[in-house]
Amino acid sequence: MFHTMVIAGVGLIGGSLALAAKERGLVNRVVGYGRNEKTLRRARNIGILDTYFLKADDFPADTNFLVLATPVSVIAPLAESFLSRINPECLISDVGSVKRRVVTGMEKLLKGSPPFVGAHPIAGSDQWGPDAARADLFVGRRCIITPTRNSDPGAVKQLRKFWHRVGAKVELMDVRLHDRILGVVSHLPHVAASALVNALERTRIESVDMAEYCGSGFRDTTRIAAGRPELWRDICMLNREAVLRGIREYVRALERIADSISRDDGRRLEQEFERALVTRKRVT
Amino acid sequence: MFHTMVIAGVGLIGGSLALAAKERGLVNRVVGYGRNEKTLRRARNIGILDTYFLKADDFPADTNFLVLATPVSVIAPLAESFLSRINPECLISDVGSVKRRVVTGMEKLLKGSPPFVGAHPIAGSDQWGPDAARADLFVGRRCIITPTRNSDPGAVKQLRKFWHRVGAKVELMDVRLHDRILGVVSHLPHVAASALVNALERTRIESVDMAEYCGSGFRDTTRIAAGRPELWRDICMLNREAVLRGIREYVRALERIADSISRDDGRRLEQEFERALVTRKRVT
Repeated sequence: MFHTMVIAGVGLIGGSLALAAKERGLVNRVVGYGRNEKTLRRARNIGILDTYFLKADDFPADTNFLVLATPVSVIAPLAESFLSRINPECLISDVGSVKRRVVTGMEKLLKGSPPFVGAHPIAGSDQWGPDAARADLFVGRRCIITPTRNSDPGAVKQLRKFWHRVGAKVELMDVRLHDRILGVVSHLPHVAASALVNALERTRIESVDMAEYCGSGFRDTTRIAAGRPELWRDICMLNREAVLRGIREYVRALERIADSISRDDGRRLEQEFERALVTRKRVT
Repeated sequence: MFHTMVIAGVGLIGGSLALAAKERGLVNRVVGYGRNEKTLRRARNIGILDTYFLKADDFPADTNFLVLATPVSVIAPLAESFLSRINPECLISDVGSVKRRVVTGMEKLLKGSPPFVGAHPIAGSDQWGPDAARADLFVGRRCIITPTRNSDPGAVKQLRKFWHRVGAKVELMDVRLHDRILGVVSHLPHVAASALVNALERTRIESVDMAEYCGSGFRDTTRIAAGRPELWRDICMLNREAVLRGIREYVRALERIADSISRDDGRRLEQEFERALVTRKRVT
């Protein structure tokens, strides 16, 4: 499909995408870009990259697929730094967890040429870095592609095909709808998990080290709090409306439970837990 | 150690304790009690129980170890129903997640004879029922034993030895301290996970089925919301002070994050996430 693919940001997602594209014969050559040479060298040594570059001026002129897999706040500024060297035919995409502000920024920057179409594969992990990358990360996972009325239909088609061929279930969605849904199913859980860890950390009970008493329930519930802080800061900041709405809804749900306990209303408390159980069983 | 052990409530914990005690040769005979004959029959058929009984009057008179592994609100009433048939030498214990109210209730009922000592193995799961039972469930896990000044030292020693021999790391702790710690590390996470599922369920975004978009982050964060509602209702009700205090601290932690986002204070938001990451890494 592409002779030269540039991946900017060779972490879990970028690295996995490089591996998947190569394994399935969708690219001839994968070139990495990043700020940290050690990471890029490591990615090359373990077979993720064919080569890499560190200065925007060294962007390979024959690139026909550029994937921006950096933290979301960096996507548009980075594209801008490459812009003078990007071929007008080069398909540009990203893998960011927030779409409206990223897509708006990119469309404003590129004005239709080269073509840009946003994408978001729903395949996270608390692992990060090239060593966490896996060629099968996207197999059977959802990838949401977010074209707008400005998007080039050929570019959308090509991106769909690419994601389909790395094994993802592709779906098209409006950027705003994407951000509202992801704000609840993905960004809010990160906030919830981090806040739970911080509540533990702030609890002082005699001289007890609370961390020692955490069982598998606490560990599972807070696993994603081990995600990269700067990455999640960007996501929450760029999707602030949905995240704030999610936190408000969440605090209300917590207060309903607290209220049932305070009022000694065991029946209502059991109903809250029962309701959660039924909904949770639908999430597979 | 014991010739006849009665386990009242043959679920994940009770069933695993029966298997562990038999496998390690700590009991000659395990007799089950419960309300649901189907569960007891199943437990007998898969080798957890030697036999079972359904009426309190059939409590085996030669029992020298009784473990109450029912929901916490049932522990004392059930012991009362067996009381006329319990040998005064029989060691009585429980495995409940809340200790102060349970231990107080039992001591009031038994008045020192037969001897009672409370215990709480920290080994939960979202699985339940005898089929989830495993002989190695307690290996390397913490078991908190909560004697009081009324406890018989010989009984405490015997119970410690029993839990040590099924593989647990035994620790003695005051009932109040136990409940305060567990309120934060165990009961609060259940509330947090359930409320997160309920917040998702209440979110209406067009006609989208939100459950379809949940990735591994949401699934991990809410796994324990699939626990038994009536069991968690009892736990939260009996440990209400600690759970309510935990929810308040948790809502404050969420509000600090919401506040950072509202004020566009990315630095403070990143600090909250960074702090959570550092603490989370200490929880192994």
